[in-house]
Amino acid sequence: MEEVSRGRIPEAVAIVAKREGIKPAKLTKLVSAGRVVIPMNARREIRPLGIGEFLTTKVNVNIGTSKAFESSESENGKAQAAVEAGSDTIMDLSTGGDLDLIRRNLLAALKVPIGTVPIYQAAINGDLSSERMFNALENQAKDGVDFVTIHVGVNKNSLERLKYSPRIMGIVSRGGSLTMKYIVETDQENPYYDEFDYVLEIAKEHELTLSLGDGLRPGCIEDASDRAKYMEFIMLGELVQKARQAGVQTMVEGPGHMPANDIETSVRAIKHLTDGAPLYLLGPLVTDIAPGYDHITAAIGGVIAGMAGADFLCATTPSEHLDLPTREDVIEGTYVTRIAAHAADLNKMGVKKRAREWDLEMAKARVDLDWERQFRAAINQRLARQIRHRRGVEIDTCTMCSDLCAIRIGRELVKK
Amino acid sequence: MEEVSRGRIPEAVAIVAKREGIKPAKLTKLVSAGRVVIPMNARREIRPLGIGEFLTTKVNVNIGTSKAFESSESENGKAQAAVEAGSDTIMDLSTGGDLDLIRRNLLAALKVPIGTVPIYQAAINGDLSSERMFNALENQAKDGVDFVTIHVGVNKNSLERLKYSPRIMGIVSRGGSLTMKYIVETDQENPYYDEFDYVLEIAKEHELTLSLGDGLRPGCIEDASDRAKYMEFIMLGELVQKARQAGVQTMVEGPGHMPANDIETSVRAIKHLTDGAPLYLLGPLVTDIAPGYDHITAAIGGVIAGMAGADFLCATTPSEHLDLPTREDVIEGTYVTRIAAHAADLNKMGVKKRAREWDLEMAKARVDLDWERQFRAAINQRLARQIRHRRGVEIDTCTMCSDLCAIRIGRELVKK
Repeated sequence: MEEVSRGRIPEAVAIVAKREGIKPAKLTKLVSAGRVVIPMNARREIRPLGIGEFLTTKVNVNIGTSKAFESSESENGKAQAAVEAGSDTIMDLSTGGDLDLIRRNLLAALKVPIGTVPIYQAAINGDLSSERMFNALENQAKDGVDFVTIHVGVNKNSLERLKYSPRIMGIVSRGGSLTMKYIVETDQENPYYDEFDYVLEIAKEHELTLSLGDGLRPGCIEDASDRAKYMEFIMLGELVQKARQAGVQTMVEGPGHMPANDIETSVRAIKHLTDGAPLYLLGPLVTDIAPGYDHITAAIGGVIAGMAGADFLCATTPSEHLDLPTREDVIEGTYVTRIAAHAADLNKMGVKKRAREWDLEMAKARVDLDWERQFRAAINQRLARQIRHRRGVEIDTCTMCSDLCAIRIGRELVKK
Repeated sequence: MEEVSRGRIPEAVAIVAKREGIKPAKLTKLVSAGRVVIPMNARREIRPLGIGEFLTTKVNVNIGTSKAFESSESENGKAQAAVEAGSDTIMDLSTGGDLDLIRRNLLAALKVPIGTVPIYQAAINGDLSSERMFNALENQAKDGVDFVTIHVGVNKNSLERLKYSPRIMGIVSRGGSLTMKYIVETDQENPYYDEFDYVLEIAKEHELTLSLGDGLRPGCIEDASDRAKYMEFIMLGELVQKARQAGVQTMVEGPGHMPANDIETSVRAIKHLTDGAPLYLLGPLVTDIAPGYDHITAAIGGVIAGMAGADFLCATTPSEHLDLPTREDVIEGTYVTRIAAHAADLNKMGVKKRAREWDLEMAKARVDLDWERQFRAAINQRLARQIRHRRGVEIDTCTMCSDLCAIRIGRELVKK
């Protein structure tokens, strides 16, 4: 961000501009205005990725151990599978086992931007303290992490608002609840908020991108869009401004569970309050009643949010609310979230035209009844082939319509 | 509809009113204005179901043989499974085997409204003719079918508009393409359109509800929202008006493949042009590139359409565009479409309040970490149980967060 604001176009911007089909000068402006971020630690050699306005909607996939399942290998395998399925970034949310080892393995194995949540490491080996929080942040930055979530919107001010908000579920963010616990138990302010300048120093030194966390995200439909949440948006907006002044790249994170009708307003409000900072969406899940299908409830919310301006979708898996995801869950979540991102892109300014070429290719393959070409245009080629061929019936149409295929009837009429 | 317009509240209206928590007098008005339909053949003994304004969004599931797979038993099994998974209605789209037998078996087995598409039966045993089309319609009505799709919007006028519309895929509706073939080859008008009065006579005699088919629905993103489609809306609107004058209950069907941003406009336009007739949605699928996931691309479109006024969602399965659905596909499509309908209901006038009670129950069960209650509140209880217990780890939180569970941290703070 600093290089850019001095008028030089760094190599990363040039690469992203080419990848996205946007003019480098325009992208340079967007990066220096903070409307686009390119998360890339000073130590990391990765393919640069842009997130924000006029760029395609990106997808993050979370992996990570928990106390119940501590295997570094299996989380590494999930991360690799997610990248193969097309995830743009990976977040390591590990909270079990040797966190340093898990993180370093991931950083060594993957060439996509990697994010973490330092407060987890600060919390799992004892009581939270300012020192432990900053140690975790600094160590992870040194290791080469490209972006970190810090829950700076959870502070004395927003918790005061939360107190007057008649929520059913309170705080459902892990990092948010740990921060609240610290504030309540010590009567101290959230260290990352209180010493945000120190956060910025660390971020600057390591060229770390900040993702200002959504600690007060609603955990159910009933809790959506309350005053506490808007208070958090306001806090995050102030900190985005500070970070930009310091030359630190910053995203903000958005909610949560939310009725579909509220999403557009919510996304537009966050964009207003944070001056168009790239918006990283968790969900939004449009209903609470579908455990086992929350990759889908999130995809629904993701498309609506994407149309309203969200830039970056966090994949949800079928295991959400139930269990640590399996490798298969991670793959399914990745594809479904990519579908949501693409469906949003079909309507996104600056992106729409190129995004629609993909659908056009599929449409042309379909009208030609050219199955091989349809498979190649499918987001999950293997799945499409498997469904078509599972019964071993080989006809030129599909077995749903057989010779009553509308496309074939149309083609034969044209021939006459 | 006739009974209602004479000021009497038939039993069916009373039952639906109770089921939906709406005043019988209000529902009576909605039915007589044609804003709500209660599809129920004069011969059928079923639980009455209302579709339209101020009522919960309903879900239809299609089943049916094709030339490649003709088994009546397996389609019957799929229909039963769909009803068990919560489908409100079933459409029999069979085009292979003994169609009369398949339909009669379904009518005997199921106590939900059943719909058919008579033109399929008219077409599969030879060349289409006016006589064959009306025979099929009348025989199916006599058998007790509750609603039928007739593609009356495909006629000389709309085909003329289609000619000037630069579509990639032309017509992708089976019934639409058969109708077009008849018109092009014989130079005769579509019999159902030309003799719509005769259609109305049959409908009236058997208390058959008409679903005015979406024969020109776009088959790809590129073809969405063109002039031909709007021409069809206009045609359907005129016929809705005629049907209402004749006292015949009528729905209209909507498109198809459509970018997410177009859906609200399209739904509102159909509602305007058809004077608020109950809208039965096929999809809309918000991208073309996801074969294997089209239950999801349709669910995304379904929620957006539902918020804009769609009343009735047709389930799409993971097999769409690839193969005749299996029983598992039908079940999956049913649940996912029900999720879309419910997510829409959380925002629907007259329905919202009751719909949110379900989500509230889940939220309360979650905050109590009461797993049994969460399962009971889950739309697919069996799936939720299976995911939670698949690894045999039994802890009070879920294995994703283990003791870093935000909800538990919050609860413990409250206790202090």
